[in-house]
Amino acid sequence: MSSDTAGKPINCKAAVCWGAGEPLKIEEVTVAPPKAHEVRIHILHTGICHTDEYTRSGKDPEGIFPVILGHEGGGIVESIGEGVTNVAPGDHVIPLYTAECRQCKFCKSGKTNLCGSVRATQGKGQMPDGTVRFKVGDKEIFHFMGTSTFSQYTVVADVSVVKITDAAPLDKACLLGCGITTAWGAVSKLQPGIRGSTVAVFGCGCIGLGCIETARLVGASRIIAVDTNPNKESWAKKFGATDFVNPTQLKEGRTIVQELIDLTDGGLDYTFDATGNVNVMRSALEASHKGWGVCTIIGVAPAGAEISTRPFQLVTGRTWRGSAFGGVKGRTELPQLVDDYLNAKIKVDEYVTHHRTLKEINEGFGDMHTGECIRCVVDMSVV
Amino acid sequence: MSSDTAGKPINCKAAVCWGAGEPLKIEEVTVAPPKAHEVRIHILHTGICHTDEYTRSGKDPEGIFPVILGHEGGGIVESIGEGVTNVAPGDHVIPLYTAECRQCKFCKSGKTNLCGSVRATQGKGQMPDGTVRFKVGDKEIFHFMGTSTFSQYTVVADVSVVKITDAAPLDKACLLGCGITTAWGAVSKLQPGIRGSTVAVFGCGCIGLGCIETARLVGASRIIAVDTNPNKESWAKKFGATDFVNPTQLKEGRTIVQELIDLTDGGLDYTFDATGNVNVMRSALEASHKGWGVCTIIGVAPAGAEISTRPFQLVTGRTWRGSAFGGVKGRTELPQLVDDYLNAKIKVDEYVTHHRTLKEINEGFGDMHTGECIRCVVDMSVV
Repeated sequence: MSSDTAGKPINCKAAVCWGAGEPLKIEEVTVAPPKAHEVRIHILHTGICHTDEYTRSGKDPEGIFPVILGHEGGGIVESIGEGVTNVAPGDHVIPLYTAECRQCKFCKSGKTNLCGSVRATQGKGQMPDGTVRFKVGDKEIFHFMGTSTFSQYTVVADVSVVKITDAAPLDKACLLGCGITTAWGAVSKLQPGIRGSTVAVFGCGCIGLGCIETARLVGASRIIAVDTNPNKESWAKKFGATDFVNPTQLKEGRTIVQELIDLTDGGLDYTFDATGNVNVMRSALEASHKGWGVCTIIGVAPAGAEISTRPFQLVTGRTWRGSAFGGVKGRTELPQLVDDYLNAKIKVDEYVTHHRTLKEINEGFGDMHTGECIRCVVDMSVV
Repeated sequence: MSSDTAGKPINCKAAVCWGAGEPLKIEEVTVAPPKAHEVRIHILHTGICHTDEYTRSGKDPEGIFPVILGHEGGGIVESIGEGVTNVAPGDHVIPLYTAECRQCKFCKSGKTNLCGSVRATQGKGQMPDGTVRFKVGDKEIFHFMGTSTFSQYTVVADVSVVKITDAAPLDKACLLGCGITTAWGAVSKLQPGIRGSTVAVFGCGCIGLGCIETARLVGASRIIAVDTNPNKESWAKKFGATDFVNPTQLKEGRTIVQELIDLTDGGLDYTFDATGNVNVMRSALEASHKGWGVCTIIGVAPAGAEISTRPFQLVTGRTWRGSAFGGVKGRTELPQLVDDYLNAKIKVDEYVTHHRTLKEINEGFGDMHTGECIRCVVDMSVV
């Protein structure tokens, strides 16, 4: 197929969001060929993540429309632009919303996975040259997070894609493009300290369960899962939680912070927010242990929301930090993580609770709000 | 003297604060002999710190009156109670408001200098047995921070005192009981990362200048001092600042965060708040570099004040932390720091701008508000 279509526009189906708060609409999209240092990918499967819903809903003040959402995809390289050396047509790949150019101040720092190379244009829904590759008729459609995996074909920067082994089923491996990897990185990069320590994870969605599982893998001694949905108790325990606390079912007048401090003789060594709720982020900090507690924020908060605490919480030895894509460098680290999945070292299949076709993608968004959905995977071939 | 007075009450002069917001009053105080695991110290000199003023002023909601304030002192052990082995009569010592028992969960953790051994009673103005050693006539007077150095004689827990070399002049070494050590620890414990990095210090009082000096000592490549008092520029540069920025003298509409980010191509590697102002604490965080910036809060904020920021600041790789007494374990680390002072490795004399007698101690509090005072040292023998 690559020889037939390379260098030419491809017409395919995509889920387009025409405006803030609108449902997605399946459209015939024309996808321009990749320019220099760009890669066109045939997307086979994609997960739906809360960040897609955040922008679709209109709550994201930086949302740009019309747009093709989606950032947790798996596919096969259809063609490459000039100068692309890291992937070739036919490669199985995962698009990366956190690029890795290996050239910029950030990549070279050795201290962060945030890459500056395509940040400015990615934030504007454009490719690095400031233009877009998607059209519906004559109407240009914006990219999203540099990935736009809700299209059967998408174009990404070469710094924003990583080749993985052909052996990995893309309907599962796609989840490593966001949620599971984010959780894995946020927890595993706290080694060696986290080994043998006590951990609390607030929120038992995909990210929270991933944190629980990783905490177990790295040898945390106790893992307390916190969620207001009682159905999450069995999920949390399946992934490795030793305890489950429901903040809505405490004795009257007790706070979740008091409860956790009492349960752990002073607080947790490590806490993780996987809710995106700024009040929960505060509880996560304040439930961490005086003197050495480390609270990591992973969830994305609503626009304008702020976290607060008394500075005394920090002066007495707690650390408040955060993590984007788990601090993972996608091109460097994802291939190994895919191998770990194939070798049954990390769970992936277990997160998939719902399957949808591209045609049903709006129902997939609805699944997220049922409280029963960990991850919905969309088969992009059926429309 | 120790043989004459050991085991007996001592009558001496002390500055007593009878109530929130009142000036100190020089009183004849009776100081009971030390009980088991307590030490009575003849205080020769003491610094005045903003934390003393914070409690004196009545702004500290946990302030307890009547009280003998003071926590930055130097003196000579007069007598010891049963079971005391770490100091002996005649030893030159510094009282420690951050105890170090070497037995509790905190001390044994290897992760913090906060010690749990005397925390509960210290916070109530009492000795560990729940009683006090000070009386004016029949009226009991509370202790402060476990030290109460504004008395010619004070009693402290044995875990709250450290012997230093006799060679150190106590009118200078007393400053190592709080301000200078706090700054030194907050900065030096960020090694090795801070070596070669860019640093901003907000506030150029004793703590801020100590941070600047320590940043220079550990090899920071650039040290930006920030203060609203233009007179502090020469102070900051004397202590090692490479740049001075006055937030009140920026171009109209510019914030200190924008200014610092522009000056440093993206922000500072490390920032320090030495003001206690929660708005400054936010600026210090947000002026730190995306991906790896670390902001350390040292200042003590007013009661009820809260720090806030968008969680995005943390998710994009900044860390917000704090430090009490610089993370320094007093009994373990202070003797070496005193030696470093005597060997001219760290400044101490240079912080002393004002001298007062015990009789003039209220004027010493006034000195702090002139904007000209870095540290005022009180000679406790003159009253």
